[in-house]
Amino acid sequence: MVAKGTYTPGERVPSIRQLSRQLRVSVNTVKAAYVHLEDRRIIEARPQSGYYVCPSLPEPPREPDIGASGTAAFNPAEVDAGGLVMRIMADVMDPGRVQFGAAVPDPALIPAEKLNRMLAAESRRFREESTGYAMPPGSLRLRTQITRRMVRSGCTLRPDDIIITTGATEAVFLALRAVCSPGDTLAVGSPIHFNFLQLFQSLGLRVLEIPSSPTDGISIEVLEKALREVPIRACLVISNFNNPLGICMPDERKRRLLALLARFDVPLIEDDINGDLPFSGRRPLTVKSWDTAGRVMLCASFSKTLAPGYRVGWIAPGRHFEAVIRQKLVTSIASATPTQLAVAEFLTSGGYARHLRAIRKAYRAKTAQMADAVGRAFPPGTRVTRPTGGFTLWLEMPRTVDSLALYGLAREQGITIAPGRIFSTTDRFGHCIRLNAALFSEKTRWAVEAVGRMAHQLAGDGPAQDSTD
Amino acid sequence: MVAKGTYTPGERVPSIRQLSRQLRVSVNTVKAAYVHLEDRRIIEARPQSGYYVCPSLPEPPREPDIGASGTAAFNPAEVDAGGLVMRIMADVMDPGRVQFGAAVPDPALIPAEKLNRMLAAESRRFREESTGYAMPPGSLRLRTQITRRMVRSGCTLRPDDIIITTGATEAVFLALRAVCSPGDTLAVGSPIHFNFLQLFQSLGLRVLEIPSSPTDGISIEVLEKALREVPIRACLVISNFNNPLGICMPDERKRRLLALLARFDVPLIEDDINGDLPFSGRRPLTVKSWDTAGRVMLCASFSKTLAPGYRVGWIAPGRHFEAVIRQKLVTSIASATPTQLAVAEFLTSGGYARHLRAIRKAYRAKTAQMADAVGRAFPPGTRVTRPTGGFTLWLEMPRTVDSLALYGLAREQGITIAPGRIFSTTDRFGHCIRLNAALFSEKTRWAVEAVGRMAHQLAGDGPAQDSTD
Repeated sequence: MVAKGTYTPGERVPSIRQLSRQLRVSVNTVKAAYVHLEDRRIIEARPQSGYYVCPSLPEPPREPDIGASGTAAFNPAEVDAGGLVMRIMADVMDPGRVQFGAAVPDPALIPAEKLNRMLAAESRRFREESTGYAMPPGSLRLRTQITRRMVRSGCTLRPDDIIITTGATEAVFLALRAVCSPGDTLAVGSPIHFNFLQLFQSLGLRVLEIPSSPTDGISIEVLEKALREVPIRACLVISNFNNPLGICMPDERKRRLLALLARFDVPLIEDDINGDLPFSGRRPLTVKSWDTAGRVMLCASFSKTLAPGYRVGWIAPGRHFEAVIRQKLVTSIASATPTQLAVAEFLTSGGYARHLRAIRKAYRAKTAQMADAVGRAFPPGTRVTRPTGGFTLWLEMPRTVDSLALYGLAREQGITIAPGRIFSTTDRFGHCIRLNAALFSEKTRWAVEAVGRMAHQLAGDGPAQDSTD
Repeated sequence: MVAKGTYTPGERVPSIRQLSRQLRVSVNTVKAAYVHLEDRRIIEARPQSGYYVCPSLPEPPREPDIGASGTAAFNPAEVDAGGLVMRIMADVMDPGRVQFGAAVPDPALIPAEKLNRMLAAESRRFREESTGYAMPPGSLRLRTQITRRMVRSGCTLRPDDIIITTGATEAVFLALRAVCSPGDTLAVGSPIHFNFLQLFQSLGLRVLEIPSSPTDGISIEVLEKALREVPIRACLVISNFNNPLGICMPDERKRRLLALLARFDVPLIEDDINGDLPFSGRRPLTVKSWDTAGRVMLCASFSKTLAPGYRVGWIAPGRHFEAVIRQKLVTSIASATPTQLAVAEFLTSGGYARHLRAIRKAYRAKTAQMADAVGRAFPPGTRVTRPTGGFTLWLEMPRTVDSLALYGLAREQGITIAPGRIFSTTDRFGHCIRLNAALFSEKTRWAVEAVGRMAHQLAGDGPAQDSTD
């Protein structure tokens, strides 16, 4: 059935009990068949959720080349500016393009009508407040709702621990401003979200890239070695469904990371922007969940789950609370009030949990389907991550494929992709790209196929062939 | 009639023609009487507007002590942080206080209902756009409306010259980030809006305070001397109805300022946040109006005229456009979308010009009435500016009055004021305070009287006396 396309990658197949009834065979027979399919990686079991069709793609790299080199000597790097990121960001606004470049959510999965209704209702309800400053730390109602949500991630925050920001980007920016000075070195998991690299550059920070593994996240072992050898002012990780790799750090690693940083008294800036987007199971914990000393500055937003244009993010900066408030006041005074009110109302009564269930399912399917399309369209040897949350895919193509050249070709065809080079100060990811699966659909499948053909061209292996079995 | 309180300070008295009819005396008799009253500064003529009751207050200082010292040697100063500004900003949120400290508009003069209606309607109308990023430079419709408005100030801007920001504060922040590096020296008109001083400090900038006169604004002569002697990276002025002095730089001075800076190839950050708030006559020009070389980075917002909580500001950064866009992207990606849409709609069809006429009149009256109340309540020798726009008053009290002590006493009584010390890196303004006249009314008159009594106490001259004749 999978081969015939009755079930497509990422879809749930009938349960053992259902199929046993449907086919009138015993439960044990179906179970044996499913185990066989699971062994061949045609389907996969997900805890408390059932069986799903696996992406029909080359085995994802368990430990790709990521960061294998570059750890011998710790040379904090300056970040190259380059207009490329600027161009990619500008392209995001162009509705004529297929947007696989920026990690923006699917507009169809934004609860626009409900949000706009709440925006209107709350502005009416809080007539005077809605036009006045929501002075930092920002809307108390919103902060209270956030603390309630974060209980799920093992964080016991009080409303007064939180500062509302203009998206998670501003949260990270404020955190960096609060604890770093120009010339300081920042340790980051590598590869790292390109906008952050640009931010480090603009703040005059030097970057020490610590390799990440697709299963464990940032290498605690390498980080420890670096902490011994180099003065590191702060550490930044995207802990859950990391951008670009989609990694969710195992809990034990989170705990160890915090213990290590505590030993060296180094603050951690933890970006948890995708924490609400696991494909299945519980919301993951955060490093902050273990933080009793206020060492972790937890940053997040509703830009991936509700509406990026509302620019509602937050930071729980621990012991750096006053410094962050101060940075917020001097750089923009406050974030817009009406969108804070609307998000607060959505969290209070808008069915945020239900909304999350729906979009998680959609992004899980899109991610699997896009990975499948990549597997079919891209040159043999292409590897792709298998994220467990969020909505980005990271591709390692054959080393002969220059991702910058691929970016240029794709752009000419009205397709944006994010070339690997902009995710690092090194050239380690020159043959990698990040794709935004949120905008994958049957309507944009052609664009994956087109980029795949271009990659084939660049790889010098002739026209695309079906790379599955 | 004025003495009896029939007409209160700031109010318009009958025209010569009207009064001649009412009193059945000749036009010439009334004219002579008015000239007499004008000579005694009981009423004043305003061009194309009629005669108004003067504030009954001591003659405002033509050239106060401001900056008379400190110009001998040019020693760029580091800014002292201090928690005082933080506390003043935090106090702004406290609805239980009389807010004379921060320069916030009168909530009663914010067109909240209309704005909220537009917020709702525009979000419905642009369903998808309203939740998506308004990527920099931001809403085209809003930028187009701004260029149309700015024709009045002699600025011929194209929509593509403008970048939408999170208020004017972010605009100035981005401008500074675009052209300055830590350690650079910035020349500013002194005294200077305290939030800017804190911003300079947080950016590691050194400040060279150039004295301002209440009639001419920043001293071009002193600035020229400084430019010859000290390396100055950029200059920042609040050109129109300056905060805190309320100065509107004469056009000729604006032109000369630009010519001077051009000669030394120094960019100008021009804050025009109050430009839309003249008490009478035309909207003033900006320095940018003469800028053909893209040297001026013009910053403004709708925080004083529409709604501070909407956080809609903008910058026209001239030749530094790309650098500012880049700073905006890396620090917060974009400003909130819905409030941009609402302000764009207000400018398009909300009667912004009519709204401005109404609030200008109100702020003119409030400023005059508060100045009058100050004149009656404060110790003899207190001087107060007579601004021609905006809504702040600057008081020079007898030198024995310590404004920090006054701030502390006032705060205990639930009244906030802005002590002069936070407007400078020097201690030149220790006996000055800034008051926000926007929140002056018959309901808050008691607070001016209370602060006046405290000032009497600190001046050591016993209880308040009526200082008017």
